[in-house]
Amino acid sequence: MNRYLVAEDWRVVERGFDPANMRSSESIFSLGNGRFGQRANHEEGYSGDHMLGSYVGGVYYPDRTKVGWWKNGYPEYFAKVLNATNWTRIEVRVNGTLLDLAKAHDVSEFERVLDMRQGLLQRSCVVEVEPGVRVKLETERFVSMASPNRAAIQMTVTPLAGVTSLVWVPMLDGGITNEDTNWDDAFWRHDGHSSDAAAGTSVLVNTTEKTEFTVGTAQAVVVEGVSWEEVGGDKWAGLSGQSSFTEAVTLTKHVGLVSSLHLAKELCGDGALEEALAGRESGYEAERAAHVEAWAQVWALGDIRIKGDAEAQQAIRFNIFHLNQTYRGDDARLNVGPKGFTGEKYGGASYWDTEAYCLPFYLATHPPHVAEQLLRYRHNHLMKAIENAEKLGFHSGAALYPMVTMNGEECHNEWEITFEEIHRNGAMVLALRNHAEYTGDESYLQREGMEVAVGVARFWAQRVHWSEHRGRYVMLGVTGPNEYENNVNNNWYTNYLAAWCLEYAADLVERFPSEVSPSESDEWRTVAKGMCLPQQEGTSIRLQQDGFLDKDLRPAMSLAEEERPINQVWSWDRILRSCFIKQADVLQGFYFFPDDFSDEELRDNFDFYEPMTVHESSLSPCVHAILAARLGREEKAVEMYLRTSRLDLDDYNAEAYQGLHITSMAGTWMSVVEGFGGFRVKDGEPHFTTMLPRAWSSYSFKLQFRGRTLEVNVDGQGAAVTRLEGAPLTVVVNGESRHV
Amino acid sequence: MNRYLVAEDWRVVERGFDPANMRSSESIFSLGNGRFGQRANHEEGYSGDHMLGSYVGGVYYPDRTKVGWWKNGYPEYFAKVLNATNWTRIEVRVNGTLLDLAKAHDVSEFERVLDMRQGLLQRSCVVEVEPGVRVKLETERFVSMASPNRAAIQMTVTPLAGVTSLVWVPMLDGGITNEDTNWDDAFWRHDGHSSDAAAGTSVLVNTTEKTEFTVGTAQAVVVEGVSWEEVGGDKWAGLSGQSSFTEAVTLTKHVGLVSSLHLAKELCGDGALEEALAGRESGYEAERAAHVEAWAQVWALGDIRIKGDAEAQQAIRFNIFHLNQTYRGDDARLNVGPKGFTGEKYGGASYWDTEAYCLPFYLATHPPHVAEQLLRYRHNHLMKAIENAEKLGFHSGAALYPMVTMNGEECHNEWEITFEEIHRNGAMVLALRNHAEYTGDESYLQREGMEVAVGVARFWAQRVHWSEHRGRYVMLGVTGPNEYENNVNNNWYTNYLAAWCLEYAADLVERFPSEVSPSESDEWRTVAKGMCLPQQEGTSIRLQQDGFLDKDLRPAMSLAEEERPINQVWSWDRILRSCFIKQADVLQGFYFFPDDFSDEELRDNFDFYEPMTVHESSLSPCVHAILAARLGREEKAVEMYLRTSRLDLDDYNAEAYQGLHITSMAGTWMSVVEGFGGFRVKDGEPHFTTMLPRAWSSYSFKLQFRGRTLEVNVDGQGAAVTRLEGAPLTVVVNGESRHV
Repeated sequence: MNRYLVAEDWRVVERGFDPANMRSSESIFSLGNGRFGQRANHEEGYSGDHMLGSYVGGVYYPDRTKVGWWKNGYPEYFAKVLNATNWTRIEVRVNGTLLDLAKAHDVSEFERVLDMRQGLLQRSCVVEVEPGVRVKLETERFVSMASPNRAAIQMTVTPLAGVTSLVWVPMLDGGITNEDTNWDDAFWRHDGHSSDAAAGTSVLVNTTEKTEFTVGTAQAVVVEGVSWEEVGGDKWAGLSGQSSFTEAVTLTKHVGLVSSLHLAKELCGDGALEEALAGRESGYEAERAAHVEAWAQVWALGDIRIKGDAEAQQAIRFNIFHLNQTYRGDDARLNVGPKGFTGEKYGGASYWDTEAYCLPFYLATHPPHVAEQLLRYRHNHLMKAIENAEKLGFHSGAALYPMVTMNGEECHNEWEITFEEIHRNGAMVLALRNHAEYTGDESYLQREGMEVAVGVARFWAQRVHWSEHRGRYVMLGVTGPNEYENNVNNNWYTNYLAAWCLEYAADLVERFPSEVSPSESDEWRTVAKGMCLPQQEGTSIRLQQDGFLDKDLRPAMSLAEEERPINQVWSWDRILRSCFIKQADVLQGFYFFPDDFSDEELRDNFDFYEPMTVHESSLSPCVHAILAARLGREEKAVEMYLRTSRLDLDDYNAEAYQGLHITSMAGTWMSVVEGFGGFRVKDGEPHFTTMLPRAWSSYSFKLQFRGRTLEVNVDGQGAAVTRLEGAPLTVVVNGESRHV
Repeated sequence: MNRYLVAEDWRVVERGFDPANMRSSESIFSLGNGRFGQRANHEEGYSGDHMLGSYVGGVYYPDRTKVGWWKNGYPEYFAKVLNATNWTRIEVRVNGTLLDLAKAHDVSEFERVLDMRQGLLQRSCVVEVEPGVRVKLETERFVSMASPNRAAIQMTVTPLAGVTSLVWVPMLDGGITNEDTNWDDAFWRHDGHSSDAAAGTSVLVNTTEKTEFTVGTAQAVVVEGVSWEEVGGDKWAGLSGQSSFTEAVTLTKHVGLVSSLHLAKELCGDGALEEALAGRESGYEAERAAHVEAWAQVWALGDIRIKGDAEAQQAIRFNIFHLNQTYRGDDARLNVGPKGFTGEKYGGASYWDTEAYCLPFYLATHPPHVAEQLLRYRHNHLMKAIENAEKLGFHSGAALYPMVTMNGEECHNEWEITFEEIHRNGAMVLALRNHAEYTGDESYLQREGMEVAVGVARFWAQRVHWSEHRGRYVMLGVTGPNEYENNVNNNWYTNYLAAWCLEYAADLVERFPSEVSPSESDEWRTVAKGMCLPQQEGTSIRLQQDGFLDKDLRPAMSLAEEERPINQVWSWDRILRSCFIKQADVLQGFYFFPDDFSDEELRDNFDFYEPMTVHESSLSPCVHAILAARLGREEKAVEMYLRTSRLDLDDYNAEAYQGLHITSMAGTWMSVVEGFGGFRVKDGEPHFTTMLPRAWSSYSFKLQFRGRTLEVNVDGQGAAVTRLEGAPLTVVVNGESRHV
């Protein structure tokens, strides 16, 4: 826990300069536009402890796998998120001394602001560069949501005392490394760089080793009264020039960034330069206005308003803001990386988080094509998923989607996860169901989605076997969502999900034209109906796995303070044999299939499992918040909501410095909309079962639903649903059908 | 499988020069004396593919752990077996060209011989160094069993054609590296070297980084008619001199090797030189004679004679030979490394193999102090075992012995092994029982052994918990001897062994003075009596673990040829969920506790498990050979015996190049003595239930037993037991009591 940020409705504000918070702030104040992004690294450079991070969506490096003991089937490479050329850098020399907050004689009036409404990062401070030499530094930057290959920075230096010279060196720095590398390989090859003093421009081009992604980065700068000279070094290019040192001077830097995902390799340099020049031609104010307008459109559809609780209001907007910075839905090669553009940890672009948590957010807050791109991403990887399954001994078109991937190939290398946490495969099909149910449009399902469902069904049908002894189909050796159990048998969640996938795929191939034979789909149904679903005798408790009741069952609150989080204190074996649960497992099934269980069953299972849950995954509290809300347990729902919504802002787990928990941010959104708002789709109709947390006076959110825009307002008087756009429809609000 | 060696009763012979076999031969022809040893690297050097390997017992490097995903509790270091100074090197230049079999124009009449009776490595060949320039090369070397800090080499070069100059460069080469390193660290620091041309000596001293083991190596050479000059380089020291090139010339090189395990660091250089000089003073023939005599004493106690089957005879001697080269029992800091002095793979000095497999061999074939050192090794590590358990959350003196260790600290880093393959802990106590039962002397047990038994009992008592649901004490999350199952619950073998340990320790603390309170030992008995021991209902089948019957049970022979070995073909998850068994697991319990089960129970369990066993551990066939013999199943016993006895000689698993399977060699010995010889101790008396494999006309072996030397002869007429030394005793031979 580290609470140093000021809570405002629309802004995150850091006041006062504390180097200890540098890495966290660099994560929290990150900017991105779905195509590229950067941590909030200081433009002028910073020699103290921090982490440079500039990332380009879809550009990765295949880092050779590092393990202690190789297991057959491990992938050879791990797709690492790459630190790319630092395009923010603008060195400033005051009286010959580099402006550097880490080395300055004094820093005062420091303020850093993330303006979430406008998508701007602003910073100002007074720096005493040397004793008696003071300047005021002000910066603002954005990564354009309007023009996805552009960014812009404005930096103003105001001489306050003792300034006798001021030199600017705006640059592009390709001499960057990753902190997270397996073997300290060089990730980038420098293709070249150049500057043009007369034009006030620089270009730098580099290409990733092995994967051969080329990225061109360019700057086009403006400062009044400066004549540039070209400077550069080993892997950097820039311009240097003296300006007036008697009055405030503003440098504007327009940045273009183009990768070979969108342009031929040899054109990336020129392409980037064109973008930077176009930005400069339209001018900072116009670029900024277009960007702010794009954000306005995002907020018009996606904002959640919470009254009466500034921290809750700020938190939910912070989550929505970062989700929109991470993914824009215009490129099916991209996905929602676990850290977005805020850090390099974990690598890979997609986990099952995308399907399980992020899809509902993008479905509800964006036009339909955005979420559909997420489905298409997996369909494009179907052949790779089939190859992946073949490596593990499956055949005949069985598909196993990877645990972590960038391009469809598995990246992960822990056997208990890579080979066994296979429930992820079911999430791919759930996403198809959710998309079709939500949009009311089955055309994507029929066109491409069904192929994914068939590949997954084939996997499940091969992954089980008939146990004479049990008289059921059993699935041995899996890891469920609760990763504090490894290699267990008959994980209820996985088996239930697999059975559902089999029936769903059988329905699809019977309803739509398909090459699947009736005997194959019959077999799927046979397996589904005969699936082993462990349950405690005489109760409605679904057993997390075979043998769960043999454990020493005790509540998480019996753990001493110093034992928590157990994943940092206990050895792994002790965690595994304990009853403690990392994140929803059986309850994840209750969340996904609300109509399959009665309220009493939900209550019994919630009361059995939640007390043993330590919520040591960022994906845990949101599901429990939603289920608690469904059960009318306000206190628990609010407790869980608080854990998820300010996870990074208040740095609950002391890991914000690594980057933000982007995918769990979608869970926070779900906690409000599906939890307090009680939103779900039933028989094609939106249902809302609302709850107003005591600390809030009201809240409201909008939903895109089957061509409509709905607005939901909840306050002390009750809940209202308004149709803002689209045709009339029936909604069910707190049990009452309303035509709106 | 690679059969290229000639089978002779006392010798292993390689004929013809084939570089493809170089690495295997380097392993198979290795020499050692329990204190140091070396692979059969060519003395003159070899530029082709091979692996240099010179090892000093107890000298290791703590290589920083390399894992993909860190788990709490992993050790920071892995103790690596270190390649040390190469003392065998004697470069020879013929007409200025380096003698090098890899580059020679032609190599003919190549023969390499391992004389196991005398402990000699001999080699001869004719080398055409350049077209028309031919010499005969003959070498012999030994690592002295009589003087454990010495070795000697004799090399003879006979000019055959075109030789116009002959230069000798005997040297010590400290410029060596390990092939197996995690991070390519430098393992050695070079302390210095010197040569003395007048004295014909060289000394080289180096010290391991971090662990600070100093090793001094020296040579003292003799060649008639050569005047030496000193040569040396970065990390090597030697002498260079011209000899006659018209007749056969012999160089004798006496080697001294002393480490800081036995001498102060600063004395190691001088100490090594003294040893080399003492060797030279006594002369090659005298040194060789003393060495051969020491081997004669080893064979006098430990030989097994098999008539009628040269391959079986050669194989059993090969196994006995290498076991004696690996461990001499004069230093409680040393143990039986998995590769001995034949390779660097795996690292560490001891696994549970020592207690489970090697102890019986050393007990039966050596005076009692040899085996006792193996027990003392573990007692010396008791505090480290207690610390190790504390790291995993245990307390109050509970001890967990490491899976792999050099100095008592855990080295291994796979959670499913390091934290969960805890049955190893029971092997420590079994070794105590076996030692006491075998020697009939409980004084060690009372003096030191009991402390180990108490620490282990405390571990088991804490590792289980009472399951209300099962009404038994359960042990969750373990890996049994069959490592093709990970993180299972209630592994029958582990639970049975744990219960036995608890009762055994309770007996000890009640019989001998101890600080353990009666209430604690009562608790041990309560746990032992309440231990969950899974068994199939209505049968005598002990279940390998909870849920074993849910598996797809099918025999290993149903596997297609191309699927085997499954550990090289199948992905790990597939192996884990299959029924296939790597090595004896339930049956290991039947082996260790023969008196606890009826013949029918053994038969039923053998017939249930053995068919599912793929024997992909070198430790598997021997246990099955013994049990098959107990059941009178000759064909199976012989099949299993053949798999274990010639594992390395015929290179069954294509891995002899890495080094030999030293610990499983003890299993081979057990297959003959406990299998075909049917030897076991029951109520203090030796029992023999013999079987004569059809292919053999007779076999015989000796045993040290409670102060006697017994000889057992089995032939077509039956079995005879003769007492060669010691007091009369009763033995039971094939059910009949005999006073001998």
